[in-house]
Order: sequence, then C-alpha cells, then structure tokens
Amino acid sequence: MPNILNRRDLDFILYDILKIDRLCAYPRHAAQDRGVFDQIIDAAEKLAEEKLQPVAALVDAQEPAFDAGRAVLPEETRDALAAIVEGGFLAAGFDESWGGLELPYIVTQAVAAYFGAANGGVAGYGMLTIAAANLLAAHGDEAQKQAYLPGLVEGRFFGTMCLSEPQAGSSLADIRTRAERQADGSYRLHGSKMWISGGDHDASENIIHFVLAKTGDPSLGVKGISLFIAPRLLLGDDGAPGARNDVTLVGLNHKMGNRATVNTVLNFGDEGGAVGFLVGEEGRGLAYMFHMMNEARIGVGLAAAVTAYTGYLHALDYAKERRQGRPIKDRDPTSPMIPIIEHADVKRMLLQQKAYSEGALHLCLYGAMLVDLARNEPDPSVREHLEGLLELLTPVIKSWPSEYGLRANDLAIQVHGGYGYTREYAVERLYRDNRLNPIHEGTKGIQGIDLLGRKVRFAGGGLMALLDGEIATDLAEATQTDGLGEATEAVRSAWAALKSGTEEMHGQAGASAPDLLLANATLYLDVFGHVVVGWLWLKQAHAVAGRPDAFARGKRQACQYFCRYELPEVHTRLELLKRLDDTCLAMDVDAF
Amino acid sequence: MPNILNRRDLDFILYDILKIDRLCAYPRHAAQDRGVFDQIIDAAEKLAEEKLQPVAALVDAQEPAFDAGRAVLPEETRDALAAIVEGGFLAAGFDESWGGLELPYIVTQAVAAYFGAANGGVAGYGMLTIAAANLLAAHGDEAQKQAYLPGLVEGRFFGTMCLSEPQAGSSLADIRTRAERQADGSYRLHGSKMWISGGDHDASENIIHFVLAKTGDPSLGVKGISLFIAPRLLLGDDGAPGARNDVTLVGLNHKMGNRATVNTVLNFGDEGGAVGFLVGEEGRGLAYMFHMMNEARIGVGLAAAVTAYTGYLHALDYAKERRQGRPIKDRDPTSPMIPIIEHADVKRMLLQQKAYSEGALHLCLYGAMLVDLARNEPDPSVREHLEGLLELLTPVIKSWPSEYGLRANDLAIQVHGGYGYTREYAVERLYRDNRLNPIHEGTKGIQGIDLLGRKVRFAGGGLMALLDGEIATDLAEATQTDGLGEATEAVRSAWAALKSGTEEMHGQAGASAPDLLLANATLYLDVFGHVVVGWLWLKQAHAVAGRPDAFARGKRQACQYFCRYELPEVHTRLELLKRLDDTCLAMDVDAF
Repeated sequence: MPNILNRRDLDFILYDILKIDRLCAYPRHAAQDRGVFDQIIDAAEKLAEEKLQPVAALVDAQEPAFDAGRAVLPEETRDALAAIVEGGFLAAGFDESWGGLELPYIVTQAVAAYFGAANGGVAGYGMLTIAAANLLAAHGDEAQKQAYLPGLVEGRFFGTMCLSEPQAGSSLADIRTRAERQADGSYRLHGSKMWISGGDHDASENIIHFVLAKTGDPSLGVKGISLFIAPRLLLGDDGAPGARNDVTLVGLNHKMGNRATVNTVLNFGDEGGAVGFLVGEEGRGLAYMFHMMNEARIGVGLAAAVTAYTGYLHALDYAKERRQGRPIKDRDPTSPMIPIIEHADVKRMLLQQKAYSEGALHLCLYGAMLVDLARNEPDPSVREHLEGLLELLTPVIKSWPSEYGLRANDLAIQVHGGYGYTREYAVERLYRDNRLNPIHEGTKGIQGIDLLGRKVRFAGGGLMALLDGEIATDLAEATQTDGLGEATEAVRSAWAALKSGTEEMHGQAGASAPDLLLANATLYLDVFGHVVVGWLWLKQAHAVAGRPDAFARGKRQACQYFCRYELPEVHTRLELLKRLDDTCLAMDVDAF
Repeated sequence: MPNILNRRDLDFILYDILKIDRLCAYPRHAAQDRGVFDQIIDAAEKLAEEKLQPVAALVDAQEPAFDAGRAVLPEETRDALAAIVEGGFLAAGFDESWGGLELPYIVTQAVAAYFGAANGGVAGYGMLTIAAANLLAAHGDEAQKQAYLPGLVEGRFFGTMCLSEPQAGSSLADIRTRAERQADGSYRLHGSKMWISGGDHDASENIIHFVLAKTGDPSLGVKGISLFIAPRLLLGDDGAPGARNDVTLVGLNHKMGNRATVNTVLNFGDEGGAVGFLVGEEGRGLAYMFHMMNEARIGVGLAAAVTAYTGYLHALDYAKERRQGRPIKDRDPTSPMIPIIEHADVKRMLLQQKAYSEGALHLCLYGAMLVDLARNEPDPSVREHLEGLLELLTPVIKSWPSEYGLRANDLAIQVHGGYGYTREYAVERLYRDNRLNPIHEGTKGIQGIDLLGRKVRFAGGGLMALLDGEIATDLAEATQTDGLGEATEAVRSAWAALKSGTEEMHGQAGASAPDLLLANATLYLDVFGHVVVGWLWLKQAHAVAGRPDAFARGKRQACQYFCRYELPEVHTRLELLKRLDDTCLAMDVDAF
C-alpha cells in the first residue's frame, strides 16, 4: 500500500467543498475542466507512488555529501527530480508564453501534496524552483525573464532563495551581504548566506540564486535591501550556462530530517565578487520576497499537513494489520489477538490524527483556493476581500499544520509502538521531516506576532470582519441542517469567544503596550488555528450531512472529535489571553 | 558549559524539599550523611562532564554495527562504560555483602540523573545491569546469586531483560518462547526475543539475559510465564565465563535516537536449546518482573525528565548568547541586536521548559524517595501507606515526564531556530532520544489503563485517599503562607476536580462498562499528571516563600506559569472525561 494520500478525501476537499471547477469560469482556465485537473493529479499520484515514495527512506539515509567543494546528491534524488521535471510538473502553473499549462494554483498544490507526502525532501527542490520562477515572473525585467524563466519553468535550472545569514535568521534587517553597482549596470555581491536549500548540487544544468543584499546605507535596515539574481554558472552570449560565478559552497548543514534537500552555507564574492543582477528597484528586495512569501507559507503548511496525512495513513494501515491484546472484557489468553485498531486508545490516536491531518489539508487547500480566486477575480472589491482573507489566514495556514501535523506524526509513531521508533517504518522519518516546519519561512513565534500584532487589526479589524462573514454564512446554513447542532454551537461559541477576546486584548493593551499584547501571541495563534480548523470541520460535516456511508460517518466522527476534544480548550486559553498575562514577559533573565 | 543539570536545583529538590538526609535515621543508612551522598553525586557529575557528555554526539552518530553475528560498539561507548564501572557506580545501591555501598535508591537516581542527562544511550547499560542485579537479588537462589551477582554489581557482567517478542510487545501473555526442563534441573530455551537493549556487545566479560519463557500449558497466558537466567557465556566450574550459550544475535534495530544503547533481536535455541536456569518458581516470572517494574518505570520517567532538563539548559545558554532582533518598540536598525532571551516568546518557551523539566525531575525523585522510605520503614502500616502512594503514582512518574519532557525538548529546538534542527547542536539529539520514553516499559496507553482502571480504585479508592492526605497537608500549610494564595487555590481546585471527576467516572461506568471507562484513559493520565506536578510546584514555591534571590524568584514564576498556563486545562479536560465521551470508542473501523 503506498498510503501517500487518500485520493477520495482529496477530491472531496477539492470538488465537494472548495468546488474548484468554478475556476473554469475565469478566462485563464476557461479551456480547462475537472478532467484536465484530474489528469495532472493522476499523473502526480502515479509518479509519487512509482518514483518518489520508493526512494524516500534511501535518500533520507544517504545524506548529501560534501566532496571537494561540491554537494553530491544520491543518484536516487537526481533520478526522482528528473522524473518530476520530465513530467512537466514544474511548468504546470505558469503562463503558456513561458511554456506553462496555466493550471490553477490549487491544482499545482494538489500535485505538491502528493510529492510532499511521498518524499518531502525531493519535492523541496521543485517548490523552490517554482517560487524562484514566480518571483522572476512578477518582478524581473523582460531580458531577465528571457534569460532565466524558460530554464526554471522547464526544470533545466533550479532556483534558490538566499535570505538568511549566520548572524541574521529571523532578523533580515541585519543581513550584511553587500552589492556594489558596476559600470555595466551589474553588481558584485559579497557576503555569506546560511540555510540555503538546494544551494549546490548536480541535479540541474544551473542553479539560479535569488539573493537579498544591501546596496545603500546599512542603517536603512530592511529598506536598504535589494534582490539580485546570481546564477551559479553565468550565462554565455548563447544563453547557455558557461563560466562559474564567484559563489562558493562552504559547507552543508546536517539536519534531523528533510535530508534529501541539501542545505548549504554559500559564500558570495570570496574571489572578488559574485556577479549579480538587480531585480526590480533598489531597496525593494524584501517587499518582492514577501510578495511570494504568502505562497511559500502555504507551501510550508501544506508540506506539514501532508507529512501528517501520510503518517496517519501508515499508522492506520499498521493498526489494521498488527494484532496485539484482546478486548478489555476478554481475559482468555487462548482467544485470538485482535487488530490494535480495535483498542479504544488506538482509535483515539487515529481519530486525532485524522482530525489534524484532514483538517490541515483542508486549511491549506482553502488558502490555495483563495490565491486562485483573488488572482482571477476581475472585481477589485471582491479581490480585496479575498486577499484580505488570505492575508489574515496565512500565518495560521503556515503554523497550525506545522504544530498539529507534527503532533499527528508523534501519534503515528505511538500507534506503531517500538517499531515506530525504528527506521524500518516510515513514521520515524516523517516525524523528523515535519519538525522542520515550525521553524522555516518565519518561525512560529513570528507568525503569532504577525497575526495578533498586525493582521487582526489591519483595516481597523476589517480582515476579521471578512472571516466573520464567511463563518457566519456557514453557521447559518449549518443551523438549518439536521445533525449539525452540536458542532454548529461549538464553532459558533468558539468563534464568538475568539472575536470578543481579540477585541478585548487590543482594547486593554492599546497601542501603548505592544510587548504585553504580544507576550502570548504564539498561544493566540494556536487558538486562532483551532477555531478556524473547527469551522472547516463543520464545513466537511455539513458536506456529508445525512449520508450513511463510511466516508461520511468518518467525517462526522472526526468533526465530533474536534468539537468535543479540541475546541473546549479555546475557551480556557482565551481566558488567559484576555488577561494579557505577563508571567512569561515578566520573568527576569537571571531567574531562569 | 556542560549544562548537564543544575546542581543547585538538584540539591534543592533532594535536601530542601525531599529532605533525604532523614534517611540516615534508618539503620541501613545510619553510617551515612549528606557528605557521603554528595561525594558520590559530585563524582557522578564529574564523570558525566568529563567522560559521558563529550562523546554523546559521537556515540549517537556511530550507531552500533552488526558484524559477523556480533554487535560492535564504538570504542567511545566502551570507554565511557568502563569509566562508570571503574567508578563503582553500579554497586552504589547494593548490599555491602555483594560489594555494594548500601546508598539510598534516591542517591543512585541522582547519579542516574547525571548520567542520563549527559549521555542517555550509554547510561542505559548501567540501568539495565542494576535492574538485572536487583531482580536476581530479590528472587534468585543463593547459588545463583553467588554465581552472577558479584559480576553484575562489579560491572564485569552486564544484564538484559528479555520480555518482548516480535508478535508480543505490550501483550506479554502471548510470548511463545518455550522452556523445557532437563534432567539436571536446568532448562533449554527456544524462541525469539525482540527489542533487547544491550543484547549483544563487547563491553563486558559476559551478558546475563533475564528471559521470560513459558513452561506449561500455553493457554495459561501470563500465569504460564517463568523467569530464567540465560548467560551469553556459560560459567565454567571456576565461575568464569566459558563456552558460548545457544543465543544468537539475529539483527539490530535501528532507532531514531538512544542509539548508543544497542537494541537487538536475539534467538534462543537455534542450535538445540539455550541453557537457562529458573529463577524462583515456575509461573511467577511476570510477577517477579513487575516487582522490579516500578523502579524501571521511575527510571524511564527520570531519563525523560533529565533529557528535558539538559535540553532546557542548552536552550537557556543559547538564548543568552544568541543575538537577534530588537525590542518590540525599537525600530532603529542601527541599534544593537538583543539576546533572544529578552524576547517574550523565547521567555515563554524557556519558562515552559523550566516548569516541565524541573517539575518532572521533582516528580521522579519524589517517587525514588518513596521507594527508600518504604524499603526502610519498620512500621507495616506506614510502609503500606508509602507503597500505596508509589503504586498510584508509578504510571504518572513513568508517563508525565515522557510526554511533557518531550515537549520541552521540542521547545528547546524551537529556541535554537534552524540551528536546533541540525546535528551540530545537542537539542536535536535529545529530542530524538526522548521520543523513546512514551513507548518502552509499558506504553503511555497502558499506563493510562493501569492508573484509571486499576490504581485509582485499589483498596476502594484507598490510594487516592493517601494522596489526598498528602496534598491536603501541603495545602493547609501553604494557605498559612504569604504569597501562595493563587497557587494554593489553583492546586486545590484542580485536585478537587480530579477527585470528584474520578469518582463520577467510576460511578457512571461501574464495573459493567470498562471499555467506556477506559476509552479516554490516556487523557486522564495526562490530567492526573498535571495536577500532581502542579502540587509539586506548589511545594517548590512554598520552600522558597519570602526569599528574594533569583533562584527563588524563578521558582515562584515557574509555579505561577504552571498554575496559570497549565492547570486550567485540567478542568476543561475533566468535563470531557466525566461525560465518558465515546467519540473515539464508537468510531467504526471502516470509517477511518
């Protein structure tokens, strides 16, 4: 059993809940239909089963090696990447003029879901390359697009994002990489970049680094940061990769998981200066990066969600096969042992995983659908509405699956018992892989500050009002539906408490005590995520209301689990949050 | 900075809270005093710093190898074990007649705390050997003790526990290893044993396996299980290890963490039958094993607690050194970056770790003190009281640190950001190491069933009454103390809710619905642990009441954290538990 994802559930979310076929009403997708969407998802599923999952354990065990200044990937990683490139998957979302298929973002995310669940480390290269190409398509000039975009879209070139430095991780204002303008309009880059995924390897013809560097007065902080293209191999007059740029691989980071994605330290300019080309205007580098950050954050959330999801399916499979113990009331040692899925505690662990992973997948795909709707929507006020929802939910989409997906992976190990703690079973690797996600693309702490300190008060609380509208509509519909009373009430009261709690917090703290307001922002983020996922579970239960089949019963039970086991803590935690408790903030450093 | 444990805090728990010097009033420890205790703890601390912690990363990376039917440990593991043996640490708790020092169990646990925090994988061999020696001392006959005990106490022989089999992990009733009695009174063993820590290596002269096997009618289940000694090398007439026994190393399990402890699959009797010697009586094997299980479970809890503890200290150290970002109100990019410990969210993560790890250490050492008090107490009614408390708390001592210690290790990674996800920092390894603890020596699910299904109703709820007495005494004292009002009330109400909730659950479920009663036993176990640890934090805050120093302030703040951030969830969860919610139990297998 590949157990990568449950296609039936994926289709349920895509078509029954999100109704993605309505995207075909927009001009960009007018020639497409569900058949077109399914075709590429089918192909992704097949490739994930045949090429990605079978080598996932191997490419985890065979970590990329540092050899004579180069990063060497296992052959299996290169082969798997070649299969993704050959399948045209990198191109799926791009404009036809660049060789793309113009498929909706959400369809590319369904593809990414299969790849990420089957082999997250290998999938990483493709995600980065797509993000780099998007950045270039949005902000590069025509000549830059002509030079690099076809290579990226076709997968001959891979891309990287070079933001962090050893002394500047979360604090990008403090990067030290410098860019000096030359007479010919190009720049020379000098500096060291840390945590660069895919920074060196031999899996593509070229690597196009997208580098943040400072050009002006260092005291400008983020406003002095510009974005540069610095290819590993400079393109010759014929457009083909030629001479090496002055980019040196200094070393590899050895990670707990996600090990197929090589993670590097790169020096730019050790031998006089790396050639870089300014993207857009000077001083706008961080703004450009953040433009693509929303999608990168959906990507992280999705990776976390599907890592949890596939772990759940592995645990489910194991629990059906593995016989151990007997029913509580049966003390006869000669009676046959039962599959452990029949033990209540194992059912609890599976139901919790189901609630987390299916809820997280729904959350991320909902975010992806908002991207598509906003991108295609002609009416500016509707588009603003959609973008507002997406802005508000992005920190939640990034963080909730990272936190609770990891907990699901923890439970998947526990279902396996001792076997789950060994590298012979996939759940061990999935747990290590998923631990990355609360860290990169903005730590969880930063997402909390973004949500509570910025997003919920954007436009005078206007984004919250947008979400309120969405939830209120669903609550009204659910109220009319038999069998949803309990869940409707649970979601209604949790959302009401969150709304009033949020207002109370901001009212008390005002603008004068941002440190007090934000002291528990991470807890607030978890609470917010729980309420949103509770709402999504209500939507899922609503979509199967009245249906007697096993799929529908499972959805209802998972919704019930979420409402009874998870949502009540929202109220408890909001009580603490509303008090603006300063226990942590007030702890003095010497007292630790 | 070794950052293994905070000795000041350890001394605080041992002497200020638990007052372990009162053990010197008992005859066994009459010749000892705090100076004697401190001497061995000092020596353990020194050895942990000099010999164990420096090789911890290396023995994790160099996993034991399977070579020509033998397990080969890295030289560093063998050297570290030799240092432990030479230091006489294995002997510390044993009777003088067997070469021991007759030190209290809790002092040996303070030693184990240092070893476990510094290098859990290496420490494991010693813990197993001590457990094996204890088992032999308690249940072996004189000739068996003469033959094996000196070797184990002196560390020339190491011990193992051979319980699980591939088809029988948690369900020991279903082991298939058979023992056949021979004319000379010895037995021949046939079967395969799984998850055997220390099952093969070259770090000691001999390995003494303690093996569960069935002798009688297989339908007897656990009652048909007996305990055998099966040395790897049979002892010659001179008592020295000689010919190999018929025990074959089949393979090694490759674990996520805890990798210095080699974990093996052993076959007994592939070549005609492994020679085994019955310990005690036939059919009593599991009872003997469970006799030592209380201490083994304290050992697991302690390993989890100190793995969390040392992770916390590493995170604390990093947070003081690492500079990143600026205070929330400071937007000037030219002002210096601040140590991340000054960010509220980092303080929260550290305070949470402090509350979990210091609380967990206290919990385990309290359990160890109960062992000593019960062992030395001459008055049978007092002894029964102490043993009752220990019985009740053992599943909590095993499980709470395993669950929340792992969460502390997760936070230690998060404090480190990307660095914490790499093998260059210890927190990555500690997280992997600690993931073992909710699994072995009885999974968390089994501990929950033990607590809710058995322990809380032993003696008509008598064990709960004992704990109630302890807590009531402390609450009464705390009520008289300035500054403890909030914490006292938080603990009082949480304990009252737990007591009444427990009664309500048993009252509703009665004996007729054990499956319903136990469906959420794992959640109950977490709740129980939280209340107990809340009580212990109140004790700690009480012990420093009125003191203005940083240590005291830190303790008070951690207590406040626990009361405000952790205890409120107890009430929320008890509401669910009291309803005997059947959401998980009722989930039908097809609906997953």
